[in-house]
Amino acid sequence: MYYFKNDYSEITHPDIMKALSLHLNDQYEGYGLDRASKSAIQKIQSFLQHDPSEIYFLEGGTQTNKVAISSFLRPHEAVISVETGHIFVHETGAIENTGHKVVTVKGINGKITIDEIQAVLDFHSDEHMVKPKLVYLSQSTEIGTIYHQEELLSISKFCRQHDLYLFVDGARLGSALTAKDNDITLSDLAKWTDAFYIGATKNGGLFGEALVINNPILQQDMRHLIKQQGAMLAKGFVLGIQFDTLFTNNLFFDLAKIANDRAQTIRDELDRRNTKWFVETTTNQLFPIFTAQELAVLESQFGFYRWAEVSPGQFAVRLVTSFATPQSAVDDFVKALQSL
Amino acid sequence: MYYFKNDYSEITHPDIMKALSLHLNDQYEGYGLDRASKSAIQKIQSFLQHDPSEIYFLEGGTQTNKVAISSFLRPHEAVISVETGHIFVHETGAIENTGHKVVTVKGINGKITIDEIQAVLDFHSDEHMVKPKLVYLSQSTEIGTIYHQEELLSISKFCRQHDLYLFVDGARLGSALTAKDNDITLSDLAKWTDAFYIGATKNGGLFGEALVINNPILQQDMRHLIKQQGAMLAKGFVLGIQFDTLFTNNLFFDLAKIANDRAQTIRDELDRRNTKWFVETTTNQLFPIFTAQELAVLESQFGFYRWAEVSPGQFAVRLVTSFATPQSAVDDFVKALQSL
Amino acid sequence: MYYFKNDYSEITHPDIMKALSLHLNDQYEGYGLDRASKSAIQKIQSFLQHDPSEIYFLEGGTQTNKVAISSFLRPHEAVISVETGHIFVHETGAIENTGHKVVTVKGINGKITIDEIQAVLDFHSDEHMVKPKLVYLSQSTEIGTIYHQEELLSISKFCRQHDLYLFVDGARLGSALTAKDNDITLSDLAKWTDAFYIGATKNGGLFGEALVINNPILQQDMRHLIKQQGAMLAKGFVLGIQFDTLFTNNLFFDLAKIANDRAQTIRDELDRRNTKWFVETTTNQLFPIFTAQELAVLESQFGFYRWAEVSPGQFAVRLVTSFATPQSAVDDFVKALQSL
Amino acid sequence: MYYFKNDYSEITHPDIMKALSLHLNDQYEGYGLDRASKSAIQKIQSFLQHDPSEIYFLEGGTQTNKVAISSFLRPHEAVISVETGHIFVHETGAIENTGHKVVTVKGINGKITIDEIQAVLDFHSDEHMVKPKLVYLSQSTEIGTIYHQEELLSISKFCRQHDLYLFVDGARLGSALTAKDNDITLSDLAKWTDAFYIGATKNGGLFGEALVINNPILQQDMRHLIKQQGAMLAKGFVLGIQFDTLFTNNLFFDLAKIANDRAQTIRDELDRRNTKWFVETTTNQLFPIFTAQELAVLESQFGFYRWAEVSPGQFAVRLVTSFATPQSAVDDFVKALQSL
Repeated sequence: MYYFKNDYSEITHPDIMKALSLHLNDQYEGYGLDRASKSAIQKIQSFLQHDPSEIYFLEGGTQTNKVAISSFLRPHEAVISVETGHIFVHETGAIENTGHKVVTVKGINGKITIDEIQAVLDFHSDEHMVKPKLVYLSQSTEIGTIYHQEELLSISKFCRQHDLYLFVDGARLGSALTAKDNDITLSDLAKWTDAFYIGATKNGGLFGEALVINNPILQQDMRHLIKQQGAMLAKGFVLGIQFDTLFTNNLFFDLAKIANDRAQTIRDELDRRNTKWFVETTTNQLFPIFTAQELAVLESQFGFYRWAEVSPGQFAVRLVTSFATPQSAVDDFVKALQSL
Repeated sequence: MYYFKNDYSEITHPDIMKALSLHLNDQYEGYGLDRASKSAIQKIQSFLQHDPSEIYFLEGGTQTNKVAISSFLRPHEAVISVETGHIFVHETGAIENTGHKVVTVKGINGKITIDEIQAVLDFHSDEHMVKPKLVYLSQSTEIGTIYHQEELLSISKFCRQHDLYLFVDGARLGSALTAKDNDITLSDLAKWTDAFYIGATKNGGLFGEALVINNPILQQDMRHLIKQQGAMLAKGFVLGIQFDTLFTNNLFFDLAKIANDRAQTIRDELDRRNTKWFVETTTNQLFPIFTAQELAVLESQFGFYRWAEVSPGQFAVRLVTSFATPQSAVDDFVKALQSL
Repeated sequence: MYYFKNDYSEITHPDIMKALSLHLNDQYEGYGLDRASKSAIQKIQSFLQHDPSEIYFLEGGTQTNKVAISSFLRPHEAVISVETGHIFVHETGAIENTGHKVVTVKGINGKITIDEIQAVLDFHSDEHMVKPKLVYLSQSTEIGTIYHQEELLSISKFCRQHDLYLFVDGARLGSALTAKDNDITLSDLAKWTDAFYIGATKNGGLFGEALVINNPILQQDMRHLIKQQGAMLAKGFVLGIQFDTLFTNNLFFDLAKIANDRAQTIRDELDRRNTKWFVETTTNQLFPIFTAQELAVLESQFGFYRWAEVSPGQFAVRLVTSFATPQSAVDDFVKALQSL
Repeated sequence: MYYFKNDYSEITHPDIMKALSLHLNDQYEGYGLDRASKSAIQKIQSFLQHDPSEIYFLEGGTQTNKVAISSFLRPHEAVISVETGHIFVHETGAIENTGHKVVTVKGINGKITIDEIQAVLDFHSDEHMVKPKLVYLSQSTEIGTIYHQEELLSISKFCRQHDLYLFVDGARLGSALTAKDNDITLSDLAKWTDAFYIGATKNGGLFGEALVINNPILQQDMRHLIKQQGAMLAKGFVLGIQFDTLFTNNLFFDLAKIANDRAQTIRDELDRRNTKWFVETTTNQLFPIFTAQELAVLESQFGFYRWAEVSPGQFAVRLVTSFATPQSAVDDFVKALQSL
């Protein structure tokens, strides 16, 4: 049975495996100070076009959120996030574990709005409340939508006017950057955010996220802070080699595009059938709504998550494609849809 | 130039790389619930011969120490460690970052003694002081020595009598278990400790530590606690496949034995030359003492760390071998020694 | 101008000041081990009629919430509270600062319901989410309402069935216990909750809260945990003398009753005038709704907080009476109302 | 029996009790924003003669250390203290509980030296170790000694040159400032330190410490941080009135002088008898060495702590005098000495 459950179900792309296998007997410096990591950083920097940025390779998304946020904030400072934010719902309180409250707003289609941020600032008026200091958002969001240039730039400006940090969770950044309606570049992110990360775990890597810190104030002693959080890999070159490969010949973008294309095949068929959407997306996550009867058929042939019962007997599901999803799998899914 | 700096300088053993490469297109369950992890657990369990034990795969040593200790202790409870302990010196305060004090004792040859533990208990007499609750030791130790059966068993008994947890850092456990004078088994560790871990990072893996929790009370909700610490790898099967390979056909032990054998070649020559030792070991770390003149020669041909200036002009150095150290490298080192 | 802003605006009741003044030259044991604290504990115990309970004197409400909750929970465990809960809104993230998430529900009239608790348990289904473990409620609540016997007892039963701790914030417990419709005793609280506290700060003391821990498991090492949180007063007898006085001749209840009676005088007049209520209460906090015009008159003569604009031009305000509110002040307020 | 155990055994000085009793029916602003606190601040400021300084009133020494240090430091930054420092030994890991390691040095006569600080900086050379950032010292020290102008000023200069904060625990600052050999003023402390505090708990107050923060960078959002630590007293005016009284007509200094004078009476007799000292002091703590036989006599008549067995049968004890120690008590002690 093929699973559309996740984009982290397959080991890694063959190019990465090959790169790791090439020099098995070489010796590397430890803790990310090796030549592969340096090369990877240089390659990513060439996309950022933003001299002040610094790059650190970490192991996973929750870890990167935890390391970044706990390093950036003083004890009384809080995060603002939509209530569907990964840090609020699916990280077992990793942020609160470091002492910081996550203040939530509803969001629209998984995206935070300036009005909501303003309302949070207005509400937190004195020292009996936490001080909101960092806006956290995900690109793409937890429900597969993306911020467009106009949105992200205005949030960025708002944050700078109000002395807020802007931090972008990029666990699925590849999928966002290669969405058909995307108008944001890595270089934009470097200029508009204080920090963001580039996820490899969900885009063809074995594991790994590249944390990019653009605000020099927030870079201070980051290697201390990464080590303290247990997030400094002894064999940092295992991360370096992966990112070096991903940012050679556009592999990172190509893999994300494959995932998006596979999703598009399914999306097209669903649109043709006038299937209703829980939320409309252009990335590698799809949230169509099915009846119980339709679900019975689909679930007998494919694995995927039920997301929400949107009305009695109407179920939103989540379908996720990846760099490794074969065309045959989406073709089979389309056929299954056509058989309904 | 060949480096005897570390046992985590090379990527991984070919068998592991091959195992990872075999099924690149397969889909696995996420977060360590996959078939490879289950198989690896079963294989390790067959060595433990201790039904209550549970096994969790984590990414690195500092992370494992941090996850385990912060999960096991209440806020006012403290760790007892020798002052050379990795958690005290080389983890950027990762334990204190989770709120716990590390109380230190001198130790003898890097090893903690019952008398020292007793003295700590005696000193911490009331509620104005932390409550020592967990004895942390490393096998092999930071300076390459190992605890023998009699030592470890008596510490274990002492801990149980005094309501202390015993936790063994096994970042270099392989080297200890295969040392020529070792008389402790994985099964002993399962029976005598509350928790310990089996390090792959420093014994041929890409990365990874297998945390074994033997005390059922300490197992409760560990997956929550691992996730909260940002230590639950999305592609947990990358760890599972590695440990599954390491515990197939004794690879784990064979690799450790190679590292030890390589060290022994150097040790034999040093003993033949009556070189003085900073501390005598039987594992893959050597701490000979050289003159400045000898150092000048050796450092021009090999990389290694200076450890301490033991007396004016007399320097202890640390030489580390690994699963990947070629025989030729140690032969070259022996030659260099003979040329002094 | 008289202020109905708070119940902690006046120093203390004369009986307490007198008790503190009586033996200025006596020497007491430090850190709460003195004879006055022991006497106070004995007197409170006589109300609890619950042998397992232990009592600790702390300095303030936020501190008591912080000490208790951080001591009771493991790192991944979370608190369930109504979203108006003091810990969620007005303690600058003190609970999150100790690492624990506060999960909120709407509540009805400031009170948590079993259905809401059940929904939280249902939602937190796996290790990617925190584990709800402690139900926090306030008696009286942040908006002056009280739980009745049937409500509290059923919450208590629910918590025990679901392995949840029940912790009651009693910063204004006196006012609740002496409300005209109250049907709960201190002894009920001792039997039905795992811990609660008896607030003196808002009921005539200089400062101080008596934390009562009824669940023996949660009592373990509490003095260590109090000290660690900087909450163990060197001159603990200053707290002991206060509570000893408050629980002599029913002073604690008499003072609370005065505050309630003063509020009732105003409540009666407002009911006579058919003033609408933001929420109806029977304790020392009143939440009437006034027009802007009425407010202009009242605010020129009295101090109090605006709570919320419930509809355009309609403002809920909060009026708080205390043990020290003179009858003349409430009479003046009634006159002002009559002049509207 | 009279106890020379502590300087926090008696309630408070009558002037403070009187000041608290004067206006029992007045209403005050909450949370330290009241007129009494403002007046107290103004009076203390007049001693500081240092415009940038800000003052916050807290409840106790451990709490003040915890609030200050946790507010000043980033997660990976550590404290340097002598190993007899209160924060290291007698605060149940309160500092570590906030995530920060306390790095210790031996000290000389309870005082830290520049050479020791330099050695700590030298040792902590990379990101695998915490970053020492704050020098903590006590004036007077845990063993009653005091830093002189030359010492403190050179430590201050060293700290500024090395980007270290200097924080002075002043739980017994009164006794230091009034010691016969003292040459440091409150104004010096304001200029030379980043923060220090003025203890009232151990110098005649009911409770309370005035935290003085001289470095504007460290003042930012302190009220948030105090509240978050559960250290913001609702009735802040209870602290304000005490400090206002203590800094009126030199009461603070007069009380400390009394304690010192009482100690001097005993010291003179001990010196006359050529009693050996564990450490020589000029403040309200004395550490003479007695034989077991002498102890038997003294302990039958007075209460005090045994400090250490300095050699077989030779015991150092600690005698502490306070603002409330009657002359008769020290006269009796002198008589007892003369009877030995």
